[in-house]
Amino acid sequence: MRAVVLAGAGGPEVLTIREIDAPRPASRQILVRVRASALNRADILQRLGRYPAPAGWPSSVPGLEYAGEVAALGPGVARWKVGDRVMGLVGGGAQAEALVVHEDEALPVPARLDLADAAAVPEACLTAFDALTTRGRLTRGERVLLHAVGSGVGTAAVQIARALGATVLGTSRSPGKLEQARALGLEVGIATRESSFRDRVGAPVHLIVDPIGAPVFADNLAVLAPLGRLVLLGFLGGSRGELDLEPVLRKRLEVIGTVMRTRSREERAALVEAARSGLVPLLESGAVRPVIDRYLPMTEIADAHRAMERDETFGKIVVVW
Amino acid sequence: MRAVVLAGAGGPEVLTIREIDAPRPASRQILVRVRASALNRADILQRLGRYPAPAGWPSSVPGLEYAGEVAALGPGVARWKVGDRVMGLVGGGAQAEALVVHEDEALPVPARLDLADAAAVPEACLTAFDALTTRGRLTRGERVLLHAVGSGVGTAAVQIARALGATVLGTSRSPGKLEQARALGLEVGIATRESSFRDRVGAPVHLIVDPIGAPVFADNLAVLAPLGRLVLLGFLGGSRGELDLEPVLRKRLEVIGTVMRTRSREERAALVEAARSGLVPLLESGAVRPVIDRYLPMTEIADAHRAMERDETFGKIVVVW
Repeated sequence: MRAVVLAGAGGPEVLTIREIDAPRPASRQILVRVRASALNRADILQRLGRYPAPAGWPSSVPGLEYAGEVAALGPGVARWKVGDRVMGLVGGGAQAEALVVHEDEALPVPARLDLADAAAVPEACLTAFDALTTRGRLTRGERVLLHAVGSGVGTAAVQIARALGATVLGTSRSPGKLEQARALGLEVGIATRESSFRDRVGAPVHLIVDPIGAPVFADNLAVLAPLGRLVLLGFLGGSRGELDLEPVLRKRLEVIGTVMRTRSREERAALVEAARSGLVPLLESGAVRPVIDRYLPMTEIADAHRAMERDETFGKIVVVW
Repeated sequence: MRAVVLAGAGGPEVLTIREIDAPRPASRQILVRVRASALNRADILQRLGRYPAPAGWPSSVPGLEYAGEVAALGPGVARWKVGDRVMGLVGGGAQAEALVVHEDEALPVPARLDLADAAAVPEACLTAFDALTTRGRLTRGERVLLHAVGSGVGTAAVQIARALGATVLGTSRSPGKLEQARALGLEVGIATRESSFRDRVGAPVHLIVDPIGAPVFADNLAVLAPLGRLVLLGFLGGSRGELDLEPVLRKRLEVIGTVMRTRSREERAALVEAARSGLVPLLESGAVRPVIDRYLPMTEIADAHRAMERDETFGKIVVVW
């Protein structure tokens, strides 16, 4: 089978398409014939040699999410049959024509989505769903602030938060992305290229989902309401800066880190289980839809990386076999 | 009635004993004849003019906790009768011969405790109980690290964490306090006058309860296990320092601020309700006992402050009418 294989660490030119052996499903695993995958910032870090795959996952084949059909069953599989349409998150290896996953870690693809669209769902929607609900404990009527709202996670989080009854505020450096996010349910869009969001949030917010990190940490704490939660998803702006814990205590805030890739199989299965009841119905009803910037053939994976690095996309880049 | 009254802001000499009008219980309030109160660091900050009482509480009469007997009932009180022994937390005013509190905010004094001992229970035990359980989500078998383990909250937390099935580690600048804490259930005592606790914790810990703040923040994050929680109780060492959020994300940590005094009446009542079932039985069985350094007459309140400022105490200073 073909796969994207990293020929060393470096620029997009290290991404090659090669023939490798197809994996075989072990006990309770399914073999998935992958039709599409989508890009994540972690793919760029991995390509640069800064974010190796966790133990137990392919180290030289990138790809953190997939959609496809079940092609074969390992012993003891109860949940799926050959031909079922599935999607999911993996620790690596999704940018290949086939991969094996534990049956509990796959989600059904809703009938209204084709597989190219479904490939854009897992990382963005599961990360947003987990950040908003399990980690962030969002409740109806709360105000939630989403940084980098034009990203894959951001566009998923707008829709999920809105569907859960929240008022959604979001930031982006690009006024154009804010305009697009309004169509998804964003109520207050704040362009941050010229000034901080701090004075433009208005009433305090109850939950923040932040992939930026240290540069916005103090302002995040400043705009949170008492008992507010800041869920950290990444450090696009770096992790180091000045610390002042005073508002954490005074307002009894919570700062909550979350990352998907290093989770154990049990944790992934628990998240997928929560998503079966909490997220899949939102996808089935169309309340939440994957937001896709463009589709590219898998053979143009290098161009896909270049587009993501230019930060010009709104939503996900899907790569299709 | 007599009360401790702040004659301005400053040293212990601003603490005076004066006659003031006794309060009267309104709807669902009880009038408590106070027999004893206990000192808290917040009393010192308030005396210095740096920590004013929250709105709705006496501004010039200090005292955050009390034990006494119910002396009169306001309209609609269902939970108590005159003569019942009660204890509790207040936003201020406990260092007076009487105070009024909402009936839902008082706890029964266990039979094995006299009122002078019971006065040392509320702030230390409720803070420790809340930090460990509601905020920190301690579960049986976890390792918990308590900073300033010789403090009132520290000595309560050792016993509660131990009773809940945790392995308890603690730090103190004083080897003598660590020795005393061992008798309460402390398993690993770490003296921090000369070096950091970071290399002496051993296996990672799941929960930290910290009243120190910024100076130990990075080391706290370093010793936490994946999904560990850091509950911040205070800033004895200050709130400002260097920030590196990297471990928060990588290990999916939670940093949780908590403070008792600014809570709303509803929140106080909810905590007291949780304590009725989770904490009072531990006090009744003797699994958790208030740790009292000394008893002083209320008329020696200035000396009580001086003793606390010298940081020479192990457990609480109780002041008695």
